[in-house]
Order: sequence, then structure tokens, then C-alpha cells
Amino acid sequence: MPDPRAVEAFDPKIAERFIASQDKQGGLPAYLGIRFTAYEPGILRAEVPVREELLTMIGNMHGGVLSALCDHVLGCVCYPHMQRGQWAATTEFKINLLAPVTKGMLEAEAEILSLTRSTAVVQIRVSNEGRIACVAQGTVLIRDAKK
Amino acid sequence: MPDPRAVEAFDPKIAERFIASQDKQGGLPAYLGIRFTAYEPGILRAEVPVREELLTMIGNMHGGVLSALCDHVLGCVCYPHMQRGQWAATTEFKINLLAPVTKGMLEAEAEILSLTRSTAVVQIRVSNEGRIACVAQGTVLIRDAKK
Amino acid sequence: MPDPRAVEAFDPKIAERFIASQDKQGGLPAYLGIRFTAYEPGILRAEVPVREELLTMIGNMHGGVLSALCDHVLGCVCYPHMQRGQWAATTEFKINLLAPVTKGMLEAEAEILSLTRSTAVVQIRVSNEGRIACVAQGTVLIRDAKK
Amino acid sequence: MPDPRAVEAFDPKIAERFIASQDKQGGLPAYLGIRFTAYEPGILRAEVPVREELLTMIGNMHGGVLSALCDHVLGCVCYPHMQRGQWAATTEFKINLLAPVTKGMLEAEAEILSLTRSTAVVQIRVSNEGRIACVAQGTVLIRDAKK
Repeated sequence: MPDPRAVEAFDPKIAERFIASQDKQGGLPAYLGIRFTAYEPGILRAEVPVREELLTMIGNMHGGVLSALCDHVLGCVCYPHMQRGQWAATTEFKINLLAPVTKGMLEAEAEILSLTRSTAVVQIRVSNEGRIACVAQGTVLIRDAKK
Repeated sequence: MPDPRAVEAFDPKIAERFIASQDKQGGLPAYLGIRFTAYEPGILRAEVPVREELLTMIGNMHGGVLSALCDHVLGCVCYPHMQRGQWAATTEFKINLLAPVTKGMLEAEAEILSLTRSTAVVQIRVSNEGRIACVAQGTVLIRDAKK
Repeated sequence: MPDPRAVEAFDPKIAERFIASQDKQGGLPAYLGIRFTAYEPGILRAEVPVREELLTMIGNMHGGVLSALCDHVLGCVCYPHMQRGQWAATTEFKINLLAPVTKGMLEAEAEILSLTRSTAVVQIRVSNEGRIACVAQGTVLIRDAKK
Repeated sequence: MPDPRAVEAFDPKIAERFIASQDKQGGLPAYLGIRFTAYEPGILRAEVPVREELLTMIGNMHGGVLSALCDHVLGCVCYPHMQRGQWAATTEFKINLLAPVTKGMLEAEAEILSLTRSTAVVQIRVSNEGRIACVAQGTVLIRDAKK
């Protein structure tokens, strides 16, 4: 269960805006094909379709795709739970890769375990073809806007 | 200092082959622009030029670039220290992001701290503009070729 | 949910034996006061009563108590899911400390997320006074008995 | 090399006081037998004599001893680099156990890789009998005194 402080702070309008505007994002998340499917209080769900370009020569998904996905949702889960103008920076995380991924869809769920005014600790579970592909946990620093 | 077992196992011909053939690699490492600059016994050095597409809207490099870079060198440092036909799979790693990156070059150094027949533990340090951008440590499973 | 392979492998007799014989354990677990309360398929529950000696001068529980507790249950959750004669060695874990602990009981739950013949990946959650004190995830190597 | 900000902030008098007063510390560090041998700018060195009580039934040092040692030096390395009255709380760390420990001395070196006003990131290396027993990296939050 997510931290009750996160559940209470959840602003569905910011969540909606993040979902609506994600097609405009470029860069690494666009290259990986990360798509946010739902925000819920304390939670973000996202998907990545497995495509050939993301596999290594051995035919398994590159671990860097999974770690970049975890890094991305780790920060992004926080925004609807923060004040407007603040930004979230991942400061550390840890990932265990549990099963090779070769096809289908990556389904990520990021959950805020602890939320204070300046930090969040988040756990992430990524599933693929009915089993866990990886789990991660890490810390986000919440900062006021640069002036 | 790298594990003496890694230093002893180092095969400069495999290292040379990895360096020579890297332009043919596609996928995530090519998208990120990872370039191996040198293998030494127990060590791999690599670079990534910081380009606008790898930054977030806030103007800092996406943490996913750094974590994917660490994941990549974590596995690749092992190959010249393994037997031919074996392959290396990252099973877990941990990253601490220490300073924002906005321009210049990422310079990564991966060092094998411990090498056995079936696992390697590797530490990675990524520098940028004269300071440490991130540090990581993780584990690689060494497997015999699929038959 | 624990890995179905762990659920299937669960041997309640070994679990019972671990619970029954724990008063005879000495060393660090005895010093910390770790008490296994229940094994279930894929899961181990344990408790540590908070006592003054385990606090720092600031009055919070020493982080080393929490990390040693996590290390201990990380390995011990595996035994009833392994073959007799095998032993489990923690090779790595990561811990996030979420809230200070000052009194009451630590309640730990260790869950096997992934079990193969040679490794297990385990997640641990430690609660205290109705909130999460820490979360951890790590890897256990399963080895055949030394001969 | 430690963070130059840590080297500059180093106060040898606080370091001296920590070394001098450590015999009075009780609790977990005393049980484990942790002894600080030297503070240097950005660095803390500590020792733990391996004794039978710290081994498991298999005859190897309990991983909880190594993780608690890492947790302890992770916070304590910071004090001579902080302002008086501030306190350091480990918020997370990651440990890789590289070799079994059965006898002799644990020699730990904790190094501050990054120091800001509110956080430190520290790497730890523990040696035993001429090889690396474990490596760890983690984060300390630096807080002003409770009022």
C-alpha cells in the first residue's frame, strides 16, 4: 500500500496533464517507448512494448532498458503528489533483474512507500508475460523550482 | 585495484575485437552514443557525449542515460575476462547519482572487484566536467553458451 | 505474491524445525533478539523487540540493527524452500530506512520474489508502530553442502 | 579520492574526540567490537576482530556483522566533516559480499565521495586477510540538531 501521505496529496489534475502531454515528450523516454497508462493515488502504471531494437545480440532485452524505465517512473510517480513548481530528481536506486524479457509488453507499477516534504522512497515492479521481470527501489529528492 | 583473477584472465584479443566491432552495435547503446575507449586488465573505459536529446525538460541529463550506461559497461567489462562462448548477464546493480550533468562528456570506468567462474562484481564511476556524476556497483552472472 | 516455485517447494517440516530450534541460536541474531514467528510458503515473519541497548545516543534504533535483521531473514526465508543439505548465502542487498524507530516491536516480512536452483531474490519489509521502518531487496546464492 | 568539499571541511578535533571517546560507546558497535583506527580528511578507518560468536553455524562471518559495520562507518565518517550539533542518519545503502570471512581482522575504509550541506554519499570497502570481503555505497542525511 502506498504511503497515506501520498494518497492524501494526490492531485488528479496534474496526473491527467502528465498523461495527456506525454506524446510531446522526446528524448530517452520516447526512444524507449514508455507510455504512462494510469496514475492512481501513490501509484503510476506504465508500459513499454518490447521491440527488436531494444534486445541485445543474445535476444534478451537490454538491462539498460529496464533500468532506464525504472529510473523514469521513479521520478514521474511523484509529480501529482508534489506542489506545483517543484521538481523530482532520482538520487539513487537499486534494481534486481529476475527473468529475461524477449517479447510482449513490459508493465511497470511504481508505488510511493514514503513521502515527506523533501524526499520520496519508491518501489517498482516490472512484469512481462505473466512473471516479474525486475524489481527496483530508490529515492527521489523533491526540490523547489530553480529561481 | 581490479581482482588479480581478472587481471590474469584478461585476453587483449577479445578486448580488441569488442573495441573494433562497436560501430556495428545498434539498439540502446547506439542510441545513447556509448563508445568504448579502452580495455585494460580488469577495466573498461567508455564515453558518452552529452547531447540535448539526452537531457530532461529541466536541462539535466536523464538519470536513465546514466543507469543504462552503468548497466551496459557492467556486463561488457567482463567479456575479455571470460572464456569464449560464455555470456554475461547483469543481475543487479545500484546507482547513486551525485551531480547533475548538463554538457560535455560522460567518462565511465568499470572495474572488476571480484571474478569467479560464475559471477563478477563490478564498480563503476562516471565523471563529467571534472567531478563524479554517479557511482554504481553490481553483479554479473557468467553463463555458458546456450546450446 | 511469492514466486510460485517457492510456494511449491515449501517444506513445512524444515520450517517447523527452524522455528523450534531458534532458541539455541547464539551470535548476532541472539544479541539482536530476532525471533521467527511464522514461516508460510515463500514467506518468513520475524520480530525484534526494541530495547534501549539497540538505540544510538540520539535515541533512534541503530541502522545496523535493521540491516543485520534484513540480512538475516534474507537468507533464512530460503531454507524451507531448498533441498536438505544445501545452504544459503546472502550475496548482496539494498536497504532504504524510511522512519526512525524508538520503541515497540520490529515486525519483518521476507518474501521470495524469485527462486531458481541456485539463487533467490527476496524483498523485506520491516514495520514498527504501524508504519514502515525499512524496505530491502537482495540476492541469496543457494549452494550444495561443502563436502 | 574523497570529495574536496569533505577534505576542506575536515575538523581534526572532532575526529580526535570520536576516536578518544569510543570506548564509552555501548550497544551494537560495542557488541560487534568496532574500533575506529583513524580519521583522515574525507575518510574513516575502522577494524573488527573476527571472533567465534560473530560466525554462523557454517563457520563464516554473519553477513549482518558486515552490513552493520558498513551502516555504522557510513554515518560516522561524516561527523568531523559536519558542523557541531548536526547529526548524520544513514538513509540507504547497498552492500555486495565478495568473499567469506572466517578469521583475522576486518579492516574497513569509508570514503566520502560527495558532500553537500544536507547529504553525503559514501563508499566503503572492507578487507580481510588480504582480499576484499565486501563493498558498500550509501547515503547519509545531515540534519540540524533537534530543538
